[in-house]
Amino acid sequence: MSSSSTSSWSDDLTIKTLAKERENPAFDIRKMSIVQHGSEKDLEKKEKFMLEASRDPIFYSGDIYDLTKEQIRERTMQRIQRLAHYVTSESVDDFQKRMELMSLLDPGLWTRLGVHYGLFLGALRSGATPNQFSYWMEKGVIGCNGMFGCFGMTELAHGSNVAGLETTSTFDEQTDEFVVHTPNLGATKWWIGGAAHTATHCAVFAQLIIKGKKHGTKTFVVPLRDPKTYQLLPGINIGDIGKKMGRDGIDNGYIQFTNVRIPRAYMLMKHTQVTREGEVREPPLQQLTYGALLQGRTAMVADAANTAKKALTISVRYAAVRRQFKSDPKAGLETQILDYPIHQRRLMPLLAQSVAFGFTALELQRLFDETSQALEALEPGDPNLEATIEMLKETHATSAGLKAFCTWATLETIEKSRQACGGHGYSSYNGFANMYSDFAVHCTWEGDNHILALQSGRSLIAQYQDAVEGKKLSAGTGYLNNIEQVLAAKCPSDAALDTLDGIDRGWATVAAHAVKKAADDYQSRLKAGRSREQAFEDCSQVRFVAASVHTSGYIFRQFRAAVERVEKSGDGVREQLELLAKFYGLWQMEEKAAFFLRSGWLSPSQLDVVQAKVTEYCAATRQFAIPLVDSFAISDHVLNSPIGRYDGDIYREYFRMVRRNNPQLKAHPYFDRLIKPFIERQAAEVEDFDEAIGIDEEIEEIKQDREEAEAEAKAEAAAKKEEAKKEV
Amino acid sequence: MSSSSTSSWSDDLTIKTLAKERENPAFDIRKMSIVQHGSEKDLEKKEKFMLEASRDPIFYSGDIYDLTKEQIRERTMQRIQRLAHYVTSESVDDFQKRMELMSLLDPGLWTRLGVHYGLFLGALRSGATPNQFSYWMEKGVIGCNGMFGCFGMTELAHGSNVAGLETTSTFDEQTDEFVVHTPNLGATKWWIGGAAHTATHCAVFAQLIIKGKKHGTKTFVVPLRDPKTYQLLPGINIGDIGKKMGRDGIDNGYIQFTNVRIPRAYMLMKHTQVTREGEVREPPLQQLTYGALLQGRTAMVADAANTAKKALTISVRYAAVRRQFKSDPKAGLETQILDYPIHQRRLMPLLAQSVAFGFTALELQRLFDETSQALEALEPGDPNLEATIEMLKETHATSAGLKAFCTWATLETIEKSRQACGGHGYSSYNGFANMYSDFAVHCTWEGDNHILALQSGRSLIAQYQDAVEGKKLSAGTGYLNNIEQVLAAKCPSDAALDTLDGIDRGWATVAAHAVKKAADDYQSRLKAGRSREQAFEDCSQVRFVAASVHTSGYIFRQFRAAVERVEKSGDGVREQLELLAKFYGLWQMEEKAAFFLRSGWLSPSQLDVVQAKVTEYCAATRQFAIPLVDSFAISDHVLNSPIGRYDGDIYREYFRMVRRNNPQLKAHPYFDRLIKPFIERQAAEVEDFDEAIGIDEEIEEIKQDREEAEAEAKAEAAAKKEEAKKEV
Repeated sequence: MSSSSTSSWSDDLTIKTLAKERENPAFDIRKMSIVQHGSEKDLEKKEKFMLEASRDPIFYSGDIYDLTKEQIRERTMQRIQRLAHYVTSESVDDFQKRMELMSLLDPGLWTRLGVHYGLFLGALRSGATPNQFSYWMEKGVIGCNGMFGCFGMTELAHGSNVAGLETTSTFDEQTDEFVVHTPNLGATKWWIGGAAHTATHCAVFAQLIIKGKKHGTKTFVVPLRDPKTYQLLPGINIGDIGKKMGRDGIDNGYIQFTNVRIPRAYMLMKHTQVTREGEVREPPLQQLTYGALLQGRTAMVADAANTAKKALTISVRYAAVRRQFKSDPKAGLETQILDYPIHQRRLMPLLAQSVAFGFTALELQRLFDETSQALEALEPGDPNLEATIEMLKETHATSAGLKAFCTWATLETIEKSRQACGGHGYSSYNGFANMYSDFAVHCTWEGDNHILALQSGRSLIAQYQDAVEGKKLSAGTGYLNNIEQVLAAKCPSDAALDTLDGIDRGWATVAAHAVKKAADDYQSRLKAGRSREQAFEDCSQVRFVAASVHTSGYIFRQFRAAVERVEKSGDGVREQLELLAKFYGLWQMEEKAAFFLRSGWLSPSQLDVVQAKVTEYCAATRQFAIPLVDSFAISDHVLNSPIGRYDGDIYREYFRMVRRNNPQLKAHPYFDRLIKPFIERQAAEVEDFDEAIGIDEEIEEIKQDREEAEAEAKAEAAAKKEEAKKEV
Repeated sequence: MSSSSTSSWSDDLTIKTLAKERENPAFDIRKMSIVQHGSEKDLEKKEKFMLEASRDPIFYSGDIYDLTKEQIRERTMQRIQRLAHYVTSESVDDFQKRMELMSLLDPGLWTRLGVHYGLFLGALRSGATPNQFSYWMEKGVIGCNGMFGCFGMTELAHGSNVAGLETTSTFDEQTDEFVVHTPNLGATKWWIGGAAHTATHCAVFAQLIIKGKKHGTKTFVVPLRDPKTYQLLPGINIGDIGKKMGRDGIDNGYIQFTNVRIPRAYMLMKHTQVTREGEVREPPLQQLTYGALLQGRTAMVADAANTAKKALTISVRYAAVRRQFKSDPKAGLETQILDYPIHQRRLMPLLAQSVAFGFTALELQRLFDETSQALEALEPGDPNLEATIEMLKETHATSAGLKAFCTWATLETIEKSRQACGGHGYSSYNGFANMYSDFAVHCTWEGDNHILALQSGRSLIAQYQDAVEGKKLSAGTGYLNNIEQVLAAKCPSDAALDTLDGIDRGWATVAAHAVKKAADDYQSRLKAGRSREQAFEDCSQVRFVAASVHTSGYIFRQFRAAVERVEKSGDGVREQLELLAKFYGLWQMEEKAAFFLRSGWLSPSQLDVVQAKVTEYCAATRQFAIPLVDSFAISDHVLNSPIGRYDGDIYREYFRMVRRNNPQLKAHPYFDRLIKPFIERQAAEVEDFDEAIGIDEEIEEIKQDREEAEAEAKAEAAAKKEEAKKEV
């Protein structure tokens, strides 16, 4: 339809509006994009993967929002087959990058493949002896040839507490086998990704029992299905656990084992060994096994950054082309909603935060690589042992806090982005509904966010004690060094609030206060006679707060460091990134203002300055908001959201997508069956049953009959009485 | 399966655990329930409706989480037919109460029926003349006999801005008709509930145009379909807008009008009239028309309270029966997660908040009834006119803020409840997934929450001016009276923080500061030469904050007032409600602590007292958490969540529900088609094409040939040169 003369709406207005936003950008967009992706090579790699996916019919996503769970699962299986091609044909690093993109494009697919390559293969890598690993390699584990693995940890009645799992694996010395068994309903393996349709083998977490004695939870590879027929093996019961909030592409299932026998060599024995005689050999260093957790968290922080950028690309572009109300009634066009200060307040801080998360994810990946290399290089009796364990501990605590607070913040970002798109945000076709429901599980799996935050808080208390005792802390908690000085610091001037260093100092002081509060509360509980575990529980809320404030400060520092690594070369990148970093630091200060006032680092009037600056930075960021989301480099195919299109042609494309997925039917789907009888039924006329039956006359007759009978009875009785009197 | 001797898990443990939680409750549960429902009669009514629904096969919900969009829509149509029975057979008040319950049981159904009874019929009630109303009554509008209405306000490119809608309705004097027309794609009516499958008529918002002149947006009843066949009428184009985040039961559609002619009398003319000659008569009092908005908001605040209680009934019961980790390794059973202080921190404040919302909803309903009666009683030239308009304005502003902040808080409550249930919260069968996606739209429709919060803030600025000028303000903003005194107040003592009155005073002072800040900023923008509209935009963030703080205080006051109406009769109800009210007030104080410190009402060390008290109240509320959620009186049928069952038998019922909805298949759904070719494919062997083709030898030959040819050419050239030399 073309625009009529009475209308201010024109078909190309949205396209022109977005083009205008890209004129004279405040920075070199390509350069800005490279900096955020770590290197030009990494950006090019991502672009290559996006191009390949967008042209591959298996990755067509135009119909994805209307598929049933069953259809999505089949589609996902097809995609798995496609990706398996790349596993064997490209480098591990390239494949990891490809998977990072897949997580953004199709989170269910990422999970389903991740169950095999991340969890199952990861369990083998960290738990199998070299010979065991070779055995499974020969079986085809790398290319999914003849086998597909799943990961049997959680049970119906047990989640986080691995030590409390109840599935048993009992050694039978006679046959040299383990007998894997589900002793009760609550011990049913639950939520097992890939179990319902895909897996042939499972890495089962079970209590090792030998000669009636429990030896704790170990991992056993248990065959589930005949790979030739996919029939369940004897003693295996598997069912589909069905509909979930999101990620329908992954076939989660339950598994019950009934006296299932496996060879002794199917227990992973890198750490604990069980000999032919049933002797148990425990490893000297239990800690080193938890390095495996880091990979998942590192991937999730990256996913949090990427997903926040995806959501904001849509909501910010929509805010630029959507118009509503006029500030001046005589103005020709309505105002772009991105020009309203309140709309800037809704989205711009989240934009700065997503960039902060991106840099933090790059740093965490670096830390993870460094830690992994150090771990791999470690030999028994190594002099670097203590240093490596310290590094692992710190990376562990840092990643715990980051996983928790970044995934929470991104979930909120998705929801706020959706709300910022008004009604159209509620349409599935614009992507937020699935993005939210797919992402939400990040707050729960691989460690519930609250539990992880508390772990981070517990580690901070320990670090604080070290600092007080004069031990020098490294990077992540370095601000706790010179603790007295840091605690006593105050914001020196309003001007300090406009520098990276000034803001950094504020976070150091306020985080130090939060950590001190947690450490003090913990100590006072100990003094009150509580056990260590009780004392930690008692002060869980302050521990939580310490982790929260510490993590915001940590993220700000990563952002600052990333900015300071960028050269000043006149292309605007360094300058605008610096603006965004200050913006993030100040906005988080405003969000957590009570702690800044409480610690005395900010005076009340300085808080007003912070608030005014945040509003100012909202307006400044709005000026380059479109070039900034362009620099996130997320293709229209990955966005899969017509209102977030790069070219701004949002309404036509949205209309097309809705029509394509909901063709107008020739016949009404249930008119004859349901609507016709309803709409044509007679208006309810309450028939007067009383009158038709004549119930009232009848009642009256009954009453009269009764009265007559009574009168008769009375008369009779009176007569009798009279007679009796006469007789007496 | 029965429990084995090696296991601490027993089939009935969860049942016994929940039963134990109900021993010696801190209050009379029935009495507590009555107080929260307003009266015993209202509670009994709700129980009656719940019983009826649970026994009616049409309201069977055990399979609801696995239905496709198409199936849900049919199911919803069947339920509509059932409910239409009650519309005509019970009182308006009873039917409204029934609908309030339906909103909790099936939000899509509530919407689909609400489109006809709330919006379409509401448009007739507020916009039709008496004769027009009688006409539509005779057509069958009350019983949906021969017609079903929908509400055509929003357009693809226009939402909140009703004045900016572009659909036109042009008067044709020749034929005495209006011509309704969609001038461009952006003017397509969009999101129209009931349009796709159900509606025969639409209340269309369109620009009235007479003799080329625009007269603003008016409402027109436009027939869409032939009720005998449900074929679209000439000029009507309707399509399904398909998949949404939630509420799939309602068939939202788009509508395009192409020169559709309707009689002049189909324009609703209670306010504006158009005569046969095309003369337009405007109403004297435009304001009175927006009373209609209040009903939707009132219902949504009640829904926010009810839905929060529903989510918390599930998460709190689950937390009581779920066990994880042991605080003492020698303890027999793992700890109930509700006993962890951090878990109490996650859920208990939300529990207090949901009770606060419930009382606030009752008060808003009272205000709405009062306002409606006053409006209906109003005659032209009435001396009560000004007072009534004031009352309407205040109710309007109050309800705007309440709708925004209560729906936001409940959406968060659902998500936090879901997360508190760990992995099982992510299963659709436990109810949170649908609850979240259904509820989320409350933040957007009937006024985007941000816009409504700003309206509330704008009204507060006006009230503040009135207060400064010495005008006496009524109930809702009464704390602004004696403004100087209120602003200067400080928390007198720690003890004051443990009284309803003390907490109330704190909220008064802090809300007054927030409102003053907004009013001052607004005035300073005016003085800087900005127009009123610009000044309001400039200070939108402080307006937003003012509305937020004001609304928390308002809710606390409603809670306090409700508590103080309850007699002290030794049954514990009054005492525990008072505890919950203080808890809510202090927790919100902690949440918004920066404002309490900034205003000076709390000193830093008093904030520590508040935080300690909140932790203490979390533990206190935990003691009666199960009896409290029982008092919410939500049946298992309405909860529809096995982990939230009243009897605590969560795992068996969850397992049963999953199995019932996902029967184990005889054959794998796509083994032959997809998995077999994948898993049995040959491991990728990279063939050496170079060697097979012998390309390297070939290249070498080509090279040699070329070199020979070159050497020959050179020799030839040299020979020629030599010859030429000789010739010279």
